[in-house]
Amino acid sequence: MIRHLLSGGDLDAGTATEILDTAAEMATVAGREVKKLPALRGRTVVNLFYEDSTRTRISFEAAAKRLSADVINFSAKGSSVTKGESLKDTALTLQAMGADAVVVRHPASGAPHRLANWLDGSVVNAGDGTHEHPTQALLDAYTMRARLGRLAGLHVAIVGDVLHSRVARSNVLLLSTLGAKVTLVGPPTLIPVDWAARAGVGSAATDADPGTDVCYDLDAVLPGVDVVMMLRVQRERMNDSYFPSAREYARRYGLDGPRLRRLPEHAIVMHPGPMNRGMEITPEVADSPRSTIVEQVANGVSVRMAVLYLLLGGNNR
Amino acid sequence: MIRHLLSGGDLDAGTATEILDTAAEMATVAGREVKKLPALRGRTVVNLFYEDSTRTRISFEAAAKRLSADVINFSAKGSSVTKGESLKDTALTLQAMGADAVVVRHPASGAPHRLANWLDGSVVNAGDGTHEHPTQALLDAYTMRARLGRLAGLHVAIVGDVLHSRVARSNVLLLSTLGAKVTLVGPPTLIPVDWAARAGVGSAATDADPGTDVCYDLDAVLPGVDVVMMLRVQRERMNDSYFPSAREYARRYGLDGPRLRRLPEHAIVMHPGPMNRGMEITPEVADSPRSTIVEQVANGVSVRMAVLYLLLGGNNR
Amino acid sequence: MIRHLLSGGDLDAGTATEILDTAAEMATVAGREVKKLPALRGRTVVNLFYEDSTRTRISFEAAAKRLSADVINFSAKGSSVTKGESLKDTALTLQAMGADAVVVRHPASGAPHRLANWLDGSVVNAGDGTHEHPTQALLDAYTMRARLGRLAGLHVAIVGDVLHSRVARSNVLLLSTLGAKVTLVGPPTLIPVDWAARAGVGSAATDADPGTDVCYDLDAVLPGVDVVMMLRVQRERMNDSYFPSAREYARRYGLDGPRLRRLPEHAIVMHPGPMNRGMEITPEVADSPRSTIVEQVANGVSVRMAVLYLLLGGNNR
Repeated sequence: MIRHLLSGGDLDAGTATEILDTAAEMATVAGREVKKLPALRGRTVVNLFYEDSTRTRISFEAAAKRLSADVINFSAKGSSVTKGESLKDTALTLQAMGADAVVVRHPASGAPHRLANWLDGSVVNAGDGTHEHPTQALLDAYTMRARLGRLAGLHVAIVGDVLHSRVARSNVLLLSTLGAKVTLVGPPTLIPVDWAARAGVGSAATDADPGTDVCYDLDAVLPGVDVVMMLRVQRERMNDSYFPSAREYARRYGLDGPRLRRLPEHAIVMHPGPMNRGMEITPEVADSPRSTIVEQVANGVSVRMAVLYLLLGGNNR
Repeated sequence: MIRHLLSGGDLDAGTATEILDTAAEMATVAGREVKKLPALRGRTVVNLFYEDSTRTRISFEAAAKRLSADVINFSAKGSSVTKGESLKDTALTLQAMGADAVVVRHPASGAPHRLANWLDGSVVNAGDGTHEHPTQALLDAYTMRARLGRLAGLHVAIVGDVLHSRVARSNVLLLSTLGAKVTLVGPPTLIPVDWAARAGVGSAATDADPGTDVCYDLDAVLPGVDVVMMLRVQRERMNDSYFPSAREYARRYGLDGPRLRRLPEHAIVMHPGPMNRGMEITPEVADSPRSTIVEQVANGVSVRMAVLYLLLGGNNR
Repeated sequence: MIRHLLSGGDLDAGTATEILDTAAEMATVAGREVKKLPALRGRTVVNLFYEDSTRTRISFEAAAKRLSADVINFSAKGSSVTKGESLKDTALTLQAMGADAVVVRHPASGAPHRLANWLDGSVVNAGDGTHEHPTQALLDAYTMRARLGRLAGLHVAIVGDVLHSRVARSNVLLLSTLGAKVTLVGPPTLIPVDWAARAGVGSAATDADPGTDVCYDLDAVLPGVDVVMMLRVQRERMNDSYFPSAREYARRYGLDGPRLRRLPEHAIVMHPGPMNRGMEITPEVADSPRSTIVEQVANGVSVRMAVLYLLLGGNNR
């Protein structure tokens, strides 16, 4: 088992599958009379959040507590961090206080990797800048597998502001490891140029990156996918010059009822949340039975239980 | 047993009494060597607070932890809520994460009722706008019963800014269910017009609402009451045009030593806290042995233990 | 055993030694399979913080949880405190909710002492204004004893803005009780005038305060000390007229490599954290094997476990 979870690309297919299988076992805990396992009793998990993300923080907190770990929340706002302490000194402080795992959300891409160099304990990347969010990719993979029975051979469209999306990046890495094909869909200004160049626009994937291609036309992609994963539009980016107008964006890349009906019958709709209803997704789609949005949240707790269990569990300490 | 606790009017006399009796049992836990009960082990209680209220949040947190529940605090400030997520999506997210009960404080009257429509779990209203705060009414009733031995037939004056007080509203509803008579006392601009009209000013209660009447003269009411419940003056309202000057308010509706001595000897003084000493209540009164203010806080934990226990306990799941 | 811990001067040598010995036992818990003790199960510890101090709050939280206590964090920002509630009413509220211990950080010197007058439970001063921070002094003493084998007869230099340092004050009090000699080092404007006058500048300690003297010249002190404890420079004070320029401060009172080499070989370097690397301490010194900065953090958890255990443990309740 790995010691840290920093990137969707850290995981080979065997390790990723072990996490998904463990998460499936963890999910059965939710149905029990007592929804707690004693597995991590006496372990301390610190949620070190340099950005607000109540949703992700709560998911990790619920996961850790269901495994009987002690959880300490550290919101870096108004903390000694703002007094100028370095990330390294904060890390060493948390370790000295007995943190067995540090779950870190940070605005700077790569911050969790630096943390991992300094700590004896485990680091879980809970989102770093526009870079990665690997537990989101794992819960997405879990959800696809649970709904569609497999991951290998699936065709997944990831739609929206791919350029700034850590969710997209981690999913591309993990899904290609697990044998799914990904098509990135969005306005040309919001697709990373290297991916667009490598893949060729609208073409099949290249040898260099066999699992990923790029398309600017959502309607052309929909009839051939098993999964359409809508990315959240971050409102703070919508005033940037490279961003289409909100109306234009919704018209070209929003998922609405007519587009939903163009999907194959078995296809599912995913969204990492929180949704901008009416922007990237209409309420009709969000609330349809083909939407897995609420399941993704529930699966997130199971997947994070699995990750914490495998990182901190008896066998590797 | 009910599934949610949204309003002081939700409870029939039998259910309300069951809660108070259970709270009395819970209060004995505070005296034990180990002050924890295992009753809610493995249950998750989420404190979803859209307004700051450390006092209420801590009371619920202490109650839940004493029952061995896991508690997750969700302050909606700086959360995905501020990123535009709807209340419904937040609710479904919390449920998917495994919340068995959501304790909600919200500035909008009625928000907890909407939550309850969407959730399978239990919703406890911890204060919604100027609307209701039912656990406060329960702890007040508990305190009256503990001090005076009964609720039926008591005469309770509720004094102050009744118009904006969720505490007053929940108390009126619960106390009339439990057979107490309530007199609302305050400046005419701070008494709801429907109650003032229905009750007739200074008259006995009407048939339509037998338990509640209205009076603008505190001194006239004091000699005949068993309980005088002072409401907190919210300083942010004191600049509004309908609000008397602070000096005028304190002179006419503040409870001071001379007024305390006009009460019957057995009568008690209540306040939901936090107090504005010198405004609605003088220190002499607040610290007198007839004041139940500190007991109310202690009883609040017992009552909230009882509510969580009855909503989440084994028998209704 | 004492009931509160308010000052480094509260402790006689026997009690202080009992805390340090208990902390040493607590430290062995960190190495166990299950790092929890059941000692404080069912006790409630409230962290009442009127100032941000994530580092100290987390240390107490980790300590309390490792003893199986329930922990409730109360950040006074945005709480009823800001609605004008008095410290006393807040204290009585927390006690009524069942707080067995209140750990308090407050900007006003003396606030924990006032709290202790009002509460039946225990009060631990986690830093009050520029006054005291006794658990910091205990963890510092623990660290010195662990590294150097004894406290009696040690010579400790405390260097920097002594005037505004609660760490310095608590250390002076505790170390003199335990038989160590302290030399305060810093710019004349940053040494309390009473200490400077009593001790005589550069002279040996007086009869009135045999353990403490004062020196303005760091280089003169270094060759004769066993411990050099660097104080944190608080950036918000650096614009004040009595404060030297940053460059001047670092040049005269910063600990760098050449100064480190002027220390006796066995001497250690301490810092309460968070550090301003490059200001009062250079990275070379901070990261040297003679620096105990990370150990201090770890020892802080053990010492706080010992304090909570002894204040709340079975024998005195």
